[in-house]
Amino acid sequence: MEIGKVTGCLWATRKYHTLAGHKLLIVENLEKGQRDEVGYRVALDTVDAGIGDTVLTVRGSASKLAEGTREAATDTTIVAVVDSIENE
Amino acid sequence: MEIGKVTGCLWATRKYHTLAGHKLLIVENLEKGQRDEVGYRVALDTVDAGIGDTVLTVRGSASKLAEGTREAATDTTIVAVVDSIENE
Amino acid sequence: MEIGKVTGCLWATRKYHTLAGHKLLIVENLEKGQRDEVGYRVALDTVDAGIGDTVLTVRGSASKLAEGTREAATDTTIVAVVDSIENE
Amino acid sequence: MEIGKVTGCLWATRKYHTLAGHKLLIVENLEKGQRDEVGYRVALDTVDAGIGDTVLTVRGSASKLAEGTREAATDTTIVAVVDSIENE
Amino acid sequence: MEIGKVTGCLWATRKYHTLAGHKLLIVENLEKGQRDEVGYRVALDTVDAGIGDTVLTVRGSASKLAEGTREAATDTTIVAVVDSIENE
Repeated sequence: MEIGKVTGCLWATRKYHTLAGHKLLIVENLEKGQRDEVGYRVALDTVDAGIGDTVLTVRGSASKLAEGTREAATDTTIVAVVDSIENE
Repeated sequence: MEIGKVTGCLWATRKYHTLAGHKLLIVENLEKGQRDEVGYRVALDTVDAGIGDTVLTVRGSASKLAEGTREAATDTTIVAVVDSIENE
Repeated sequence: MEIGKVTGCLWATRKYHTLAGHKLLIVENLEKGQRDEVGYRVALDTVDAGIGDTVLTVRGSASKLAEGTREAATDTTIVAVVDSIENE
Repeated sequence: MEIGKVTGCLWATRKYHTLAGHKLLIVENLEKGQRDEVGYRVALDTVDAGIGDTVLTVRGSASKLAEGTREAATDTTIVAVVDSIENE
Repeated sequence: MEIGKVTGCLWATRKYHTLAGHKLLIVENLEKGQRDEVGYRVALDTVDAGIGDTVLTVRGSASKLAEGTREAATDTTIVAVVDSIENE
């Protein structure tokens, strides 16, 4: 899983119907600890995250485990709002 | 999910039969926010996207969730045409 | 999906039995549009591709969708021989 | 699978319910042998790993194979504490 | 699939039980043709590979297709010992 910061959202009228009703958020990489050189990723929200929140995102088939997302065409889902990180 | 721009299409007569009837589009990376150093990816279209459209693509097993793509040998599918992005 | 060029093949006597009978081809990255810094990938062939062919490869669970590959231990499969690419 | 070192943990009150009760650890990359440029990854723990442990993490659908993690929204799970590595 | 060279092995007493009885090998990248910047990967062995062998590894869900690995928490499995590569 990866940590990121919610910085925006994405609007799409013409979309695959299983994405209807889902909030699509822009999650920016934190300076350290992000895979690849990706500046941001688009993630489906399951925890009502908001702009500025530090969140945990999950990729791949696990991103469809939440109720309401099982049939959603998502490969990246926000599964937690991070309270704090204790790191050496 | 990742954002990209449709810049072309790909023709293939000899292909695995589950891809028959599907439109295969070239989706170029936007400057920022794309995974890896990939210049473009080939994506199966489910929303009737056209050249110049900014689109949202999904990877992996989720790319087979749309009707008609469940049996298709795809790992990247266009699931939305992006109207706008609100980003800080 | 990704575009590449078939440049060779791989021989293996001692292999997991579900790979028996499958042709394993070396697919080199084209200059542009390939994920990561990988020079080539090994792909299972489903369309009788040959040396020099420009092909479309699929990764992940979708690479097991073709008949005869469902039980094969493959993560990369050639699903089409590319005729032409129209790109802006 | 990848080798890493546990350096911390992550706290999240608001999280998807299938993650409740699971320990989320920060696993830092070792100098050599880590995919991408990722400084660290967040992994679900199944072997009661502790700070300073060298661990083996698994990605993707395999990270949900352990009892109690099948329904968890995880894409990275710690599956072993490494005793030693014999490498040429 | 990817080609690599077996250079060592990994020992772990405390591990998830589905990995018990499986040999975990260190597979180093060959100079060319490896994904990412990873120096090595840890792979589960299904073909009795040994130190110095050039092997073919498979990633993702396909790495659990071999008998005895279906329930194993692996994301990378050695599926063949390479005899030779014919490449232009």
